[in-house]
This record gives sequence, C-alpha cells and structure tokens, in this order.
Amino acid sequence: MELGQTPKEIRQAIRQARYTGGTGGLAPSYVQANLVILPQAQAYDFLVFCQRNPKPCPLIEVTDPGNPEPAGVARGADLRTDVPRYRIYREGQLEAEVTDIVTEWREDFVAFLLGCSFTFEQALLQAGVPLRHLEENRIVPMWRTSLACRPAGIFRGPMVVSMRPVPAPLIPRAVTVTARYPMAHGAPVHIGTPAQIGIADVRKPDWGEAVTILPGEEPVFWACGVTPQAVALEARPPLVITHAPGHMFITDLPDHALAVL
Amino acid sequence: MELGQTPKEIRQAIRQARYTGGTGGLAPSYVQANLVILPQAQAYDFLVFCQRNPKPCPLIEVTDPGNPEPAGVARGADLRTDVPRYRIYREGQLEAEVTDIVTEWREDFVAFLLGCSFTFEQALLQAGVPLRHLEENRIVPMWRTSLACRPAGIFRGPMVVSMRPVPAPLIPRAVTVTARYPMAHGAPVHIGTPAQIGIADVRKPDWGEAVTILPGEEPVFWACGVTPQAVALEARPPLVITHAPGHMFITDLPDHALAVL
Repeated sequence: MELGQTPKEIRQAIRQARYTGGTGGLAPSYVQANLVILPQAQAYDFLVFCQRNPKPCPLIEVTDPGNPEPAGVARGADLRTDVPRYRIYREGQLEAEVTDIVTEWREDFVAFLLGCSFTFEQALLQAGVPLRHLEENRIVPMWRTSLACRPAGIFRGPMVVSMRPVPAPLIPRAVTVTARYPMAHGAPVHIGTPAQIGIADVRKPDWGEAVTILPGEEPVFWACGVTPQAVALEARPPLVITHAPGHMFITDLPDHALAVL
Repeated sequence: MELGQTPKEIRQAIRQARYTGGTGGLAPSYVQANLVILPQAQAYDFLVFCQRNPKPCPLIEVTDPGNPEPAGVARGADLRTDVPRYRIYREGQLEAEVTDIVTEWREDFVAFLLGCSFTFEQALLQAGVPLRHLEENRIVPMWRTSLACRPAGIFRGPMVVSMRPVPAPLIPRAVTVTARYPMAHGAPVHIGTPAQIGIADVRKPDWGEAVTILPGEEPVFWACGVTPQAVALEARPPLVITHAPGHMFITDLPDHALAVL
C-alpha cells in the first residue's frame, strides 16, 4: 500500500479515498482521536459534559463552528474527509456509514476530538506491560458500569470502561505509565473485582470481545472513549456524526505531546 | 479569629461576612480557585477558550446556568456569597467591588472556577523549592508575554505568566513537581532569558511586585490565572464578575485531588 508514513500523508490517502480501513497501527507514536460532531445548539452542553467527565472525555480539540479544520492538532486537515469512515445518527438512530461527510457538513457544526486509548496502550507496551487483546487479536472488551458520569444539560449516562488484564507485579507500572496521559483517559478508574463497578460477568463485555485473564493477573479498568459516543447517542440530538469504531482521526501530535511528565 | 478550619467552616464565615479578607494561607492543602462569571451568551466561547489554553486556564468547574452551587468541587457552597470579595465589570470597566453578588445574580449566569497557583506553590514548598515572593512578603510578579493564547470566539490575548526565581540545581524538581498539577497551571512555560517570551525587564512586572533574583538562580515562568481574567475583560462583554485579586474561592478538594501522579 502507498499509504505513506506521516500523519499528513496518511490523511491525504484517506481524503482521496485510497484508504478507508481501520487506523489501528497506522502512524504509530502519533495521537489518534475519537470524533464527535454536533450542531452548535448541542455543543455547549457537550463541552460542559466533557469538562465534568475528563477521564472518559479528554477533549484535545474543539473546532470553530462551521470550520472543519482542527487547527490545534492537525493544521490543514479537513474533518469532512480525513477520517476513513463516519457514522451518521439522527435522533440517536444510525442512518448511514460513509467515507466522507462533505454533503452533510453544515455551518453550525462543531467537531470534538477526544484522546483515545491507542496513546496509553503504546506507552504500556513500551513500559513492558503486555496487552492481552492484542496478543489474542481481539477488540478490547468494554462495559457500561455503575459509575455515573456527572450530567450536563441533555447529556447523561454511565461511564463505559475498557479492561486489560495485568500481571499483579506490573499493576503499579501500568498505573503510573497511563497516569502520565490524562488527555488519553489517564490512570485506571478501577482495579480488581469487576462487581464493584457493576460488571456482572467479566467474560461478557457489552462491546468488543472477551479476553483471557490468567492466574496471577487482575482486571484493570480504564475510562473509555465509547462513553461520550454512548452519551451523545442516548441524548438523541437531531444529528450526531462520529467516526466508525476503530476508524479514528490521526493528528499531527506525537504521543509525548499529551504526556504530563 | 473564629474562622474555623475546614473549607466549609471558612466559606460559612465568608458567607456571613464575618470574613472579607484575602484567602492566602487559609485552609492550607485545599484547592483554591479563580472565579469568572459570565452570562451564558458568552460562556460557550469562554469554555472553548479554556479548552484551547489549558495551561493558563485550567477549568476545574463549570456551573449549570443560573445555579450558584459548584457541586463538583464544593457541595452546598454558593458562589454568590462564598467568595470574600468580587469585582463587577461592565463592558470591561470595573464598576464595583463587593462582598456578595446576591442582587446581581441572574438566571443566565455561568460560573467558571479555574485552578490557581496556590496549589503548586504548596507542592513546591513541600519539595524544598523556596518561594522568594513569600520570603520577601510580596505579590508574585506577573507579565503579559509574547506567547499568544489560541483565540476562541470573542476571547483572545497574550498569555500572562508569573515568575519565581529557582536555584539552578532545583529547577528539574520545580518542573516535575508542578507538572503533576496540570489543573493548577502545570509545568513551567519558560525557564531563563525573559526576553525570549517578550519580557523586557524582569524587575518591572505588569502586575504584582518585583522579587530578588540571586546569583545562581534562573527566573522560572508559569502560566498564570490572570490570563483568563485579562482576556475576559479585554473582550468587553456586557458583564463579567470575578473574585478580587487574592480573594479566592476555597473548594473542598484536597490539593492531591488535582495531582496526576
């Protein structure tokens, strides 16, 4: 494939529809982001929701109304074309999955980019913490929890978490490594007994696929970027556009730009 | 004085106008916050401005329109009465300094609380980094810089920084200690040569008072909470209410609640 190497080259290939696949593994060590697009009428509540729930909703960019360029994280990029696949929801119902949203774009649209777990997973791997879902080639398992997000306007709902089993001796390292990235969900929200956060069966995720938990490992739970998408859909605003799962926006920010230490 | 010890007791004394002085040194180890109140018409732009400029504008709370309770950081508190002194600005001009804003409060008001340097100064002292302005009993010196904030809607302007001289061998510690507190301005934005960030004379601050820089020390500059106030005033919205300098809102959050590691 002639995808190129830099985020800009890859976005160019995506823009020209030469690439419409998932972005996992592309431009490693560059920040990828979750996308939520809303009309400005709902944007204020969503901004406050993100401020109140920074672990599941780490906001790395908000565009000016009508302007599809996320200038703070990828100068010259166009959020109408530079994501491989979009999902369009009306009143909370999936209407279409498309490879660009040029015809759907409106002057009152605001795009939100949120940090994603790819960033901290890269950091975990570099720190020697294995990732079972990658070893088993599965989608990371995710659950709705009993942890309530703090509501804001029309947006409310439970926190969604992802789970990675971690060998007990590596848990402190897994915590400190991810804590360095508050803009990519940060430190775990829970370690151990799944029932304490309302997860009935750790073998039956609400999204993604179950992974093996070996003896001597504890399940470690991080706030998940599915939270803002689930919350945005449950509010049933007239229109929401998101990326399709796994088909993220690739920014020009190197991962270390999100690290606090 | 019978101010009491807990943030709640101190807020109660402030609410009853038994105390109207500065909050420096009160409820040590609890987070104090800068206050900016705006009508909702200007609140969206201000929220986006804070998202785009997190170092000078670390947002720790946004209230629901018309609701003066900052429920996320101080349940039961009332932002109309629980700050010792407020400043009311119309069209960017100071109109009054008052000890409560009960009569001014409107149903469309949104209050923003922003992290403040008291938090990281406490951490610096605990880490053995001396603070010259406290030793010399002066107000920390502050400057407008040539570092532009990223604008949002009506809000734009330069970053304001505060300066603390640090002995060269302690600079790495000063950086790592404050980096742990991204919600209280985080790591420094500049170390050394003041001219590089547009500061002509390190002995002549734009706000506060000059402090002695000893041989073997470097000036270290942190993003300052005066930035959002300056930016809010320069935009000349119909109405802005802020705390009076040094008269902060005392939250129930212990300092460590803002630490990432």
